[in-house]
Amino acid sequence: MTAMKPALLVVDMQNDFVLPDAPAAVKGAAATIPRIKAVLDRFRRSGWPVFHVVREYRADGSDIEISRRDAFLAGPGYVISGTTGAEIVRALSPESGEYRIVKPRFSAFFGTELELILRRLAVDRLVLCGTQYPNCIRATAYDGLSHGYPVLVITDATSASDDQVAEANIRDLRNVGIRCVSFEEFDRSIGG
Amino acid sequence: MTAMKPALLVVDMQNDFVLPDAPAAVKGAAATIPRIKAVLDRFRRSGWPVFHVVREYRADGSDIEISRRDAFLAGPGYVISGTTGAEIVRALSPESGEYRIVKPRFSAFFGTELELILRRLAVDRLVLCGTQYPNCIRATAYDGLSHGYPVLVITDATSASDDQVAEANIRDLRNVGIRCVSFEEFDRSIGG
Repeated sequence: MTAMKPALLVVDMQNDFVLPDAPAAVKGAAATIPRIKAVLDRFRRSGWPVFHVVREYRADGSDIEISRRDAFLAGPGYVISGTTGAEIVRALSPESGEYRIVKPRFSAFFGTELELILRRLAVDRLVLCGTQYPNCIRATAYDGLSHGYPVLVITDATSASDDQVAEANIRDLRNVGIRCVSFEEFDRSIGG
Repeated sequence: MTAMKPALLVVDMQNDFVLPDAPAAVKGAAATIPRIKAVLDRFRRSGWPVFHVVREYRADGSDIEISRRDAFLAGPGYVISGTTGAEIVRALSPESGEYRIVKPRFSAFFGTELELILRRLAVDRLVLCGTQYPNCIRATAYDGLSHGYPVLVITDATSASDDQVAEANIRDLRNVGIRCVSFEEFDRSIGG
């Protein structure tokens, strides 16, 4: 029997998206930090690969989505490369041997080296958590499935601006066969 | 002033997804045919490029999403290449000079030649309609935006299994700056 080889993708848990007073705060994100830490611990204990997927923008707006550019340039900006706001929240800091992937768009696969590394590591399934459901989580989940990976989202380690948005997205994800389960359920299913 | 150059993407309006008794029918799809026809007429009148984006699967299940494979192989299948079910519904048949793009996954950009042709034609924005909101429409809208195109979805020419799903998806799409408007509103905005 071949052992399974899941990879964990922790998405966008950066100061500017997570800290309650941050410029682009996602309301539900801060509350998920302890649960994401538990997921991280589980992967670290098993020696499975961990990817910290983050968003960064250039301050001049040259690489932001066209629909967001004007508002970004009119304000102080957010997740600008090299700023504290772009850093991963302290409690979830990457450890040695983990991967940091900068994504220029919603999906962790779009314009990044993620798929190259997943293949090199012979990863056979993806586990997602982080923020936020409708955008980066969802785009990454669909792309992961499109690349042929079974995808699982840990619901209590993933956030949105409110519960209604989270629930609507979970329903759509499940309809295409993306598993959405709690950390406890996930942990039990892998023989925690 | 440079004239605008929008491209229309009509998504998945194939017999197996649209006809009411079809194996993979999307409940809301058949009702949108007349409105999609009106959108097509508008683009044809203006000489703007039209893309008919369709899904096709091989009968052996080798190219279907991993999460759908077992159910697909257990039944008679759907949108199998070369079958009537994979054909575009008669009322929306492509005309000479229009593009037919076969997509193996949700997004019209994933593993297809779409972006190559859009660039060659110097298309500067995308207009989407068809079915269905949570999957192929949404994945295509996010990828279009990710590639740098302003994206507009024609709401009364786009469908889902029910209104609640459609509305939840429209809300998420608008939140990233994807315009969602009726055909009338679109037609007026381009000086119909």
